[in-house]
Amino acid sequence: MVDKDLHSHHISAQFNAELDDVKTRMLEMGGLVERQVADSVNAVMNSDGGLAESVLKGDMRINNMEVAIDEECALILARRHPAASDLRLVLAITRALHDLERMGDEATKIAEHAIRLIDHGEMPRCVVEIRHLGNHVCMMVRDSLDCFARLDVEQALRVAQEDKAVDLEYATAMRTLVTYMMEDARSISAVLNIMWSLRSLERVGDHARNIAEHVVYLVKGQDVRHVGLTELEARIHDGR
Amino acid sequence: MVDKDLHSHHISAQFNAELDDVKTRMLEMGGLVERQVADSVNAVMNSDGGLAESVLKGDMRINNMEVAIDEECALILARRHPAASDLRLVLAITRALHDLERMGDEATKIAEHAIRLIDHGEMPRCVVEIRHLGNHVCMMVRDSLDCFARLDVEQALRVAQEDKAVDLEYATAMRTLVTYMMEDARSISAVLNIMWSLRSLERVGDHARNIAEHVVYLVKGQDVRHVGLTELEARIHDGR
Repeated sequence: MVDKDLHSHHISAQFNAELDDVKTRMLEMGGLVERQVADSVNAVMNSDGGLAESVLKGDMRINNMEVAIDEECALILARRHPAASDLRLVLAITRALHDLERMGDEATKIAEHAIRLIDHGEMPRCVVEIRHLGNHVCMMVRDSLDCFARLDVEQALRVAQEDKAVDLEYATAMRTLVTYMMEDARSISAVLNIMWSLRSLERVGDHARNIAEHVVYLVKGQDVRHVGLTELEARIHDGR
Repeated sequence: MVDKDLHSHHISAQFNAELDDVKTRMLEMGGLVERQVADSVNAVMNSDGGLAESVLKGDMRINNMEVAIDEECALILARRHPAASDLRLVLAITRALHDLERMGDEATKIAEHAIRLIDHGEMPRCVVEIRHLGNHVCMMVRDSLDCFARLDVEQALRVAQEDKAVDLEYATAMRTLVTYMMEDARSISAVLNIMWSLRSLERVGDHARNIAEHVVYLVKGQDVRHVGLTELEARIHDGR
């Protein structure tokens, strides 16, 4: 009987180690993605072609991480049959992986726009619109990973609130860019590259919000993917 | 012993019925999403505000389906501990659900652009660019669901090939729209609505390709999310 308990204890310790491992690797991937996004924004701001190229190269590593960690999650499901919060952790990690990979894709799109802007020559003055949104979105990404690491639903709520602010900033920036285009038809192609880059940043913000929602799912056991901010707040504060 | 076999048989028949059920419901959701995309394109083409509104209303139903079917998948994982191809089926369904939900979101974006274009008044002549891409992408969505229903990896490969064609069509259409903008600065706002709609259609095509890749994962047991077309073809035809 003692041996059997010892055996169960070993299994459970191994299982916990495996869960910790996939979570840690997902967060590492998140750190890389955060840097890719920041680098892509800097590549646009500073007309840095070398940095843009390194973002493009770095995407493969992120894609490989997604596949490898997702495979590890599938193996855990197949071998360990996790239940309750362990199952939710594995599912939340696979969902977060997907969001991180998509953020990485958006970073490569921004890097491609940086390269096109550099090829185009003169940088449109509206490039500054990118810095503010870029900083804001990078902070959201960092916070979303942080709330996943600490399972902090209050911080998850703040990430969702920031996403609303980012959406507003994005809409304002887009209106400004339309007026630039109207004032100078020759700038249209260049301004479009800034527009698409802003759009990508706005999408990165959406994915950061998604990760925050996976944290709420993990901690509260409730799928909150399509609820509004008020409802999200109510569910987080319900039954504390 | 006979009773025990009968019991196992019951369990396994129930399990199969549950797997069939989630698959069927996912495909039903897919049918709805396909209609949402087609309706959103028609709303733009025909300046049909009523149709655009119905797309916006229909999105909630799709979101609810995603959450409900995903929850059913999590329950199957928790209760049935599926292994091998059964596990891959459940994981492929949860991934496909996510892609379908995203397609539904893109349809609502197109519907919103339709409403803005109607409010704007005069429809830009480049609205025709949407019909061709819209038809092509809707066909891809239908084919991706069809190959999931029949677990047909050859058709999955064709969907991935179509996505390449859609990306080229999209790039050509975008260049055309830039020239429209340059020729008539007053049309910029209206043409941007067409551009964003085309972008959304191109994204729907990407998601259809993703679903085709989930089918390859399901049938071949290989994650092909980031491999190129040539490699995809090699993996599908490898070891037949």
